[in-house]
Amino acid sequence: LSLQINSVFCFRANEDFLQNDIRVKPDLDALGALGDVGWYCIRAILWAVDYELPKTVIALRDPIKNRSGELLACGATLYWADGKTATFSCSFLTNLTMDITLVGTNGTLHVTDFVIPYEEKSAEFSVASKSNFAQLHIGWDPLPSKHVVTTDLPQEALMVQEFARLVQNIRDAGGKPEGKWPAITRKTQVVLDAVKTSIDKGSEPVEIAN
Amino acid sequence: LSLQINSVFCFRANEDFLQNDIRVKPDLDALGALGDVGWYCIRAILWAVDYELPKTVIALRDPIKNRSGELLACGATLYWADGKTATFSCSFLTNLTMDITLVGTNGTLHVTDFVIPYEEKSAEFSVASKSNFAQLHIGWDPLPSKHVVTTDLPQEALMVQEFARLVQNIRDAGGKPEGKWPAITRKTQVVLDAVKTSIDKGSEPVEIAN
Repeated sequence: LSLQINSVFCFRANEDFLQNDIRVKPDLDALGALGDVGWYCIRAILWAVDYELPKTVIALRDPIKNRSGELLACGATLYWADGKTATFSCSFLTNLTMDITLVGTNGTLHVTDFVIPYEEKSAEFSVASKSNFAQLHIGWDPLPSKHVVTTDLPQEALMVQEFARLVQNIRDAGGKPEGKWPAITRKTQVVLDAVKTSIDKGSEPVEIAN
Repeated sequence: LSLQINSVFCFRANEDFLQNDIRVKPDLDALGALGDVGWYCIRAILWAVDYELPKTVIALRDPIKNRSGELLACGATLYWADGKTATFSCSFLTNLTMDITLVGTNGTLHVTDFVIPYEEKSAEFSVASKSNFAQLHIGWDPLPSKHVVTTDLPQEALMVQEFARLVQNIRDAGGKPEGKWPAITRKTQVVLDAVKTSIDKGSEPVEIAN
């Protein structure tokens, strides 16, 4: 089975951001665009592979840095042992875009607002399964279909709700800290650090130990 | 000004194709998926940059080959001297997909059927310009907009019409062969050959002379 993933998250920062934001100051947030928006690309890619870590990470060449050496734009290719590949790019210098595209053996998924949805009360994605050409190749059959997921509560409220549930479970029910969130956060950081290492080494491959 | 391009063209070939098609036989079409579907990705990318050749091409690692060494899936990253970058991937092993996404300084363009459109009489694209968040980041404003271009004649008929016009111009009007089509075809082939060289050299960078 094959899987190829592309993700982009970028926005065009204004002059004030590019001069003064903590994300462009090496002594405040040393990861720049990679830490701010690349993080979401990596997390989305990991989500798509059930959080299996890639084996090798290679940064795209020629990342854009500011005078202090902070990353303003960069990207990477991720390789898994079984042949899955993913690329992502992130930037403070291009039009607001939040894409993830997954192309698998039997289907294709497109989301173009995967971090902050276009509208607060719904989120949409396009999915195609066993796509083929129509007779005489004059079109596609079946066509991809668009799906809209509605929500009463926006994702920020759901996050606070989940956080409260986790705290309550420990405080009131004697539960233990849940492993899910720290585990996937740690994995995201591991991949992000590997990308940063590859950037610092001039796009050399960086292996991730499992 | 920044520009980042992603393109994917793949389809899931059936067993008969994978065993018998000329595209999987080294003595018939030695370029496999790269020559068949990668060609369109490269052409679309060149279209997006007004046919300016990239400076450097680096193939993605671990291309998938059949037993005869023919490419079944591969990809590459293209780098221009001024910082533009593009990635593409092509495959005979994944669900029919034809994407090109362009993210520039001030806008984003999505097309998901750039080779054979979903419907014969129209083609659609999504474009966003100076995208931003709505107040409180509860959505986007402006939203990307979808555009539909209709046509009376499908692209194949337009191609024959253009070809007839070019021939007629020479035969009946004493004109000379038009340079446009051979020029962009040649450029596409130059990039494709560079990708193939990079693949053959284990994803070493390949420089393209202008």
